[in-house]
Amino acid sequence: MTVHPTVEELLQRREQGHSLEAPLYTRADVFDLDMDVIFRRHWIFVGVEPDVPEPGDCMTVEVGASSVLILRGEDMQIHAFHNVCRHRGARLVTAEKATIGNIVCRYHGWTYGETGALLFAEHMGPEFDTSCHGLKPVHLRTLAGLIFICLAAEAPDDFDRMAETIAPYIGPHDIANSKVAYSYDLIEEGNWKLTMENNRECYHCAGNHPELTIPLQAYGFGFAPDELDAFHRADAASYEGAQASASARWTEMGLPSAEREELLNATGFRAERLVLSGAGESHTLDTRRACGKLMADFTQADLGALSFWTQPNSWHHFMADHAVTFMVMPLAPNRTLVRTKWLVHKDAAEGRDYDLENLIRVWTATNQQDADLVALTHGGVSEPAYEPGPYSRFTEGLVEKFCQWYVARMSRHLLDAALRMPAGAPVAAE
Amino acid sequence: MTVHPTVEELLQRREQGHSLEAPLYTRADVFDLDMDVIFRRHWIFVGVEPDVPEPGDCMTVEVGASSVLILRGEDMQIHAFHNVCRHRGARLVTAEKATIGNIVCRYHGWTYGETGALLFAEHMGPEFDTSCHGLKPVHLRTLAGLIFICLAAEAPDDFDRMAETIAPYIGPHDIANSKVAYSYDLIEEGNWKLTMENNRECYHCAGNHPELTIPLQAYGFGFAPDELDAFHRADAASYEGAQASASARWTEMGLPSAEREELLNATGFRAERLVLSGAGESHTLDTRRACGKLMADFTQADLGALSFWTQPNSWHHFMADHAVTFMVMPLAPNRTLVRTKWLVHKDAAEGRDYDLENLIRVWTATNQQDADLVALTHGGVSEPAYEPGPYSRFTEGLVEKFCQWYVARMSRHLLDAALRMPAGAPVAAE
Amino acid sequence: MTVHPTVEELLQRREQGHSLEAPLYTRADVFDLDMDVIFRRHWIFVGVEPDVPEPGDCMTVEVGASSVLILRGEDMQIHAFHNVCRHRGARLVTAEKATIGNIVCRYHGWTYGETGALLFAEHMGPEFDTSCHGLKPVHLRTLAGLIFICLAAEAPDDFDRMAETIAPYIGPHDIANSKVAYSYDLIEEGNWKLTMENNRECYHCAGNHPELTIPLQAYGFGFAPDELDAFHRADAASYEGAQASASARWTEMGLPSAEREELLNATGFRAERLVLSGAGESHTLDTRRACGKLMADFTQADLGALSFWTQPNSWHHFMADHAVTFMVMPLAPNRTLVRTKWLVHKDAAEGRDYDLENLIRVWTATNQQDADLVALTHGGVSEPAYEPGPYSRFTEGLVEKFCQWYVARMSRHLLDAALRMPAGAPVAAE
Repeated sequence: MTVHPTVEELLQRREQGHSLEAPLYTRADVFDLDMDVIFRRHWIFVGVEPDVPEPGDCMTVEVGASSVLILRGEDMQIHAFHNVCRHRGARLVTAEKATIGNIVCRYHGWTYGETGALLFAEHMGPEFDTSCHGLKPVHLRTLAGLIFICLAAEAPDDFDRMAETIAPYIGPHDIANSKVAYSYDLIEEGNWKLTMENNRECYHCAGNHPELTIPLQAYGFGFAPDELDAFHRADAASYEGAQASASARWTEMGLPSAEREELLNATGFRAERLVLSGAGESHTLDTRRACGKLMADFTQADLGALSFWTQPNSWHHFMADHAVTFMVMPLAPNRTLVRTKWLVHKDAAEGRDYDLENLIRVWTATNQQDADLVALTHGGVSEPAYEPGPYSRFTEGLVEKFCQWYVARMSRHLLDAALRMPAGAPVAAE
Repeated sequence: MTVHPTVEELLQRREQGHSLEAPLYTRADVFDLDMDVIFRRHWIFVGVEPDVPEPGDCMTVEVGASSVLILRGEDMQIHAFHNVCRHRGARLVTAEKATIGNIVCRYHGWTYGETGALLFAEHMGPEFDTSCHGLKPVHLRTLAGLIFICLAAEAPDDFDRMAETIAPYIGPHDIANSKVAYSYDLIEEGNWKLTMENNRECYHCAGNHPELTIPLQAYGFGFAPDELDAFHRADAASYEGAQASASARWTEMGLPSAEREELLNATGFRAERLVLSGAGESHTLDTRRACGKLMADFTQADLGALSFWTQPNSWHHFMADHAVTFMVMPLAPNRTLVRTKWLVHKDAAEGRDYDLENLIRVWTATNQQDADLVALTHGGVSEPAYEPGPYSRFTEGLVEKFCQWYVARMSRHLLDAALRMPAGAPVAAE
Repeated sequence: MTVHPTVEELLQRREQGHSLEAPLYTRADVFDLDMDVIFRRHWIFVGVEPDVPEPGDCMTVEVGASSVLILRGEDMQIHAFHNVCRHRGARLVTAEKATIGNIVCRYHGWTYGETGALLFAEHMGPEFDTSCHGLKPVHLRTLAGLIFICLAAEAPDDFDRMAETIAPYIGPHDIANSKVAYSYDLIEEGNWKLTMENNRECYHCAGNHPELTIPLQAYGFGFAPDELDAFHRADAASYEGAQASASARWTEMGLPSAEREELLNATGFRAERLVLSGAGESHTLDTRRACGKLMADFTQADLGALSFWTQPNSWHHFMADHAVTFMVMPLAPNRTLVRTKWLVHKDAAEGRDYDLENLIRVWTATNQQDADLVALTHGGVSEPAYEPGPYSRFTEGLVEKFCQWYVARMSRHLLDAALRMPAGAPVAAE
């Protein structure tokens, strides 16, 4: 009875400056396309070099129905493969992290080397050609210690553009010489796009994030100037002054801070370093460093917070003492994984250099608050009476850019894909 | 391979006097239509005035994916709104019951008044028109203290017919001056129509409801006269005599008791007051009042039980000392919520005037027995070998009327809806 | 965007000697067809005569949405019915096993006799014809104590072929005079065809089944001769000698052992009796009998293991002291029930004649190991990068035959069914 609009119609008729129509958040066919178009054909953030510090260290990452095996080889290069045996399809590595020699399938013992070549397969007879049965590779790139993969046969060609622009910002924090102090997975009961939209504004911060707003200043995220009274106008001006003088100081230290934003690229990104309140050192309750041993070779702690956002699925905050990375991974139309990792200098010792609870307190609290908001919103947009509402042009501009990016990427690939893909063809690189 | 009959075909070929074909109980597309046609376009029972006794009291009711916010205003009027913020769609109130001032969205602080008007929205700039962003209203009517809502833009116009006919029956029990002594939710593992069919006959009572059959007499629900032996014939005649003399007595007291039945109206209903066994006072194990303080201004307790049934989703029993209301709400093709509330005079005190366990014992036991029967039947009708079986024309006449009503309402609206509804149009009133 | 291949296309283009394409393991529509074509139109193994040893003993078996009631009558015949009341469809018996007199529906008391005839139905009036409302029968056959049913109106006509061939093999173990010492259900997180494929090869045994490989010799399941070194070649030759001499001995005792294989029949099967290692008596850790009281009238325990495999859903091992039967029942595209039963002589007493833990140890361990492998494989074949891999022609020949049978039966019935089935027609026998 109800005629469902097609995904193409929903994308085409999207009203700018407004939240998306409900089916784009809730429908199973849209979710499947999101996984296929957004998460299989774009560069997605999946982890950090310190996840696999030594040769033989590997980790697995689930992207929809796919499992990707990420492995550091003897030559310190990081390789990525589809985590599936070429014999009868068994998963090869099931642990999230492990250290291995060769990759041996548990089912019938097929054995692959670190480059994915099939080294050994019993009972297959003399005519069997092992060279046709190596593991299928997955594109992998690193950016100043952050690991990105792309599951498409042909990855978007603008990764370098992002890497060149952003490496000077993140590089000084020397992520490759850090370690993962803590990592945890939070499942949000909402669509992944609501998770991303929530991340792209701080309009909701004052009312919902008592811990996060101690070091953060709302002005950094935009405001409606007409709404400010004399007091807040002075406050905003003082914030701008502090940001300008800090930027000048950081520039001298070789730490770029100016906003760089190319959010509408296939590999969309944005970065800027913002001054923090109080002591200005870190995302902590007292605004001071959580880790006594600073990252890289830093000698000063008041470096503010360098933030780095990517489309479609990550954001990161780099401070003098630690960094926090966030990976978003859709699990279902109404379930989204947020994996958060805290990085400190690799020589920092828990107990001596940092108190773990203090290190993670602000973002574990903030993540849970955001998860509650996402669940609240997913519940509401699932409601037949919901209709897209207006974004604030002052404080929700990046939300709008996320939606624009999403609509553009989906529209582009839906067309391309319809023209090029034979039925049932595997999407992965060969 | 299997060609699935359409809903229209299933409705059209329904064999009168027989249970429905399996897909009408089990198929997901039928369930979606049930929610859309039956539960969004008809008057449904959702609660009682004592659920929101004071100004600022509100409750939320879930109807499929919709959440409805029911709120008593300062003027004591009860309003109903779609429980979804006009900004980015967050749910406004999540508790089942709460007392609030204005309605404030937790996400970004948008604030609505008790009539739904948007009073305040930060950061939206001077050009933003709050008057276009009020909460969307939902139709609400009360009948002698019972609250009904309709989610359609245009509600069925025969609510008054039911209200005029039934108010004289229920009115004397003065529900507005009662309180909810107890409420609980039971989830039945079966389709909602099986829950309703089970409610519409007492053929199963003798074999399944040892507590309920103490005050109830099966004869009140029909019987096959040819099957009665001399003993039971005399018994039935004596029951008819008792009913006639009680009715005469109740009429003198201003308590109508004669059967009124208009079950095939869009807003279908049926009511009658039946004599109870034993002391004749209440649905209790000893057939005596459970609450010493009687409802309204009653001075006599032997008022039998006034029963009120509605299509599609409620039944109610009003006695001198207490009333019980039942709301049915489909959750999934095979899951149905039954919410039961016990009402007593608002001045009755637990412990002094009533023992809660005694008050609720008969219906908590009976509900669980019915839930078991519904689960047993849902399991069976899901079976490919199931075929519709015959209803008894003596004791399952109201089941047949429920099915007739269902088939007629669905058929009518499927046609209307196909003609009128643009794709994706919100169903709700504007 | 992605064009899904139809089931017909997937079957037609299946590459011989390779595992199936992913959708045949994972897609919901394929699963539904598997249930309809394979599990409702073929003879499936569901239990053993000792499950219902006495008149009035019954058991229920779930096959997809169907429940089948299997009942031994006063005349010792075993009957099978659809377990659904002809009145309003309630399930009649819900326990897995029970002992009953007549079959009485709990809902409204309709009562059926042991042949399925409706004996009694209250309130239905004089014109109601009970003879049209008996329980619907299900085809049932026994083979040397094993119970098979077929839910189709017309069952495959080659059951006799299997029974005649196999009865001489199993008959001597006298299953009808055994008892079920233990039964348990294991749910494997994978498609039922992966469960079956896993059962049809021992290529994986050496690496995964430390308990099972004590009595078993891999050579019995094939090997690649070119891969054997001098030592293993001698080992294989010695195994062949042992098998030959044991076979000669068994033949004298009236115990056939030669391989019989008709796996591609509609009712496909295979049997052979293989010598066991060590003491050669049983599937135990010490290769000796687990039950002191031998089955049937056996006086010798070194009878090796008679194995019997059927398409689509069972395998069985019969030794001198006990037998083990395995029933596979699909629950969902990615969930499969494996029900295992251990049978011993009906006069054997636990504690005296056998230690239960010792009796069941090998196969409870092996089943769990197999379940892990099936889950691992289901995870992998669900992966977009999965593509069918090659089977070993030496050790995976029976896997290939299972796939060939599956593809042939599906293709045949898809065609037949499309031609013959009216929409919505019940599949069951009338």
